[in-house]
Amino acid sequence: MREKSPINFCIKCGTRVVITIPEGDNRERHVCTACGEIQYQNPKIVTGCIPVCENRILLCRRAIDPRMGFWTIPAGFMENDETLEQGAIRETREEAMARVTDLHMYQIFDMPRINQVYILYRANLAEPDNFGAGPESLEVQLTPIDAIPWNEMAFLVIKRTLERYLDEWRTGSFSFSADSLDENKNPHHRP
Amino acid sequence: MREKSPINFCIKCGTRVVITIPEGDNRERHVCTACGEIQYQNPKIVTGCIPVCENRILLCRRAIDPRMGFWTIPAGFMENDETLEQGAIRETREEAMARVTDLHMYQIFDMPRINQVYILYRANLAEPDNFGAGPESLEVQLTPIDAIPWNEMAFLVIKRTLERYLDEWRTGSFSFSADSLDENKNPHHRP
Repeated sequence: MREKSPINFCIKCGTRVVITIPEGDNRERHVCTACGEIQYQNPKIVTGCIPVCENRILLCRRAIDPRMGFWTIPAGFMENDETLEQGAIRETREEAMARVTDLHMYQIFDMPRINQVYILYRANLAEPDNFGAGPESLEVQLTPIDAIPWNEMAFLVIKRTLERYLDEWRTGSFSFSADSLDENKNPHHRP
Repeated sequence: MREKSPINFCIKCGTRVVITIPEGDNRERHVCTACGEIQYQNPKIVTGCIPVCENRILLCRRAIDPRMGFWTIPAGFMENDETLEQGAIRETREEAMARVTDLHMYQIFDMPRINQVYILYRANLAEPDNFGAGPESLEVQLTPIDAIPWNEMAFLVIKRTLERYLDEWRTGSFSFSADSLDENKNPHHRP
């Protein structure tokens, strides 16, 4: 559904587009041959969080492809008209039917190969008895931090984030980090 | 040029779209009445930096609307196939014809009213004698940090970032910060 479709037509007037470098620009864009509309493509933000209750974190087993059946944390594409935090809270509600509070930005990974920027928070699972599988999850589990299913994680970006979280959890002190990551293009990455 | 155009037609097949909530979704999208293609709209990332040389920072006076003639720092829309840092370095080269190194993520502002997320770095101006006005700048000045033209700043998001930078510069210690900001919608915001 969110896989990239080819850009063939102009969103504004419906005429065929061509790929060319617009005047005053320095890279190829999809440009309308009739009205001149330029369709820019830019990276998308994925926002999400690590919902934490003492020494346990809330993990979701994916009900959708790619990586159906594998584990992840609540995360998804940031929508218009919301803040990053609101997006992370919304995704947690949708995917894990859980409420999180006290969010702290924890990890940014930009992934230029797939044109996504992950912005992940650590968060307090507000009601540890209240969670469940949303439509995009097969099951949701409050998992002891030393029992994370490392070999069944859906995405490298989440695995790396949780590895760092576990390291820091052992020290008792958390720090923000921003880095780049080359997530594999196949299977097509979709949070 | 980057002002939002209305979405009237399908990018894939050129048929008219309607606004409706797709099955399994919970918000209105532009959906093609022929092929079913869904056109998602998501926030865009603006990446940029504060180029610093000792107690001076590199400011650009805008040659383009909105806010032509007002001051800002090098920043612009993140492109596909680049990292956040690469985007900030590219924008500095394009707008201020300058080279920056040693970037540290300094400030994130999400601005839900205009669907932009600013991710700004502090950076070292690598060659303090080498800079100039790119096509989108009227002039570029290496400005003493206590002489920032606060009343002639183009955008609130940059003003807030520089205010914090100045405060921290006085203490000698810099920290990362992430927050939300309601930038005014008028004039239409374009980095």
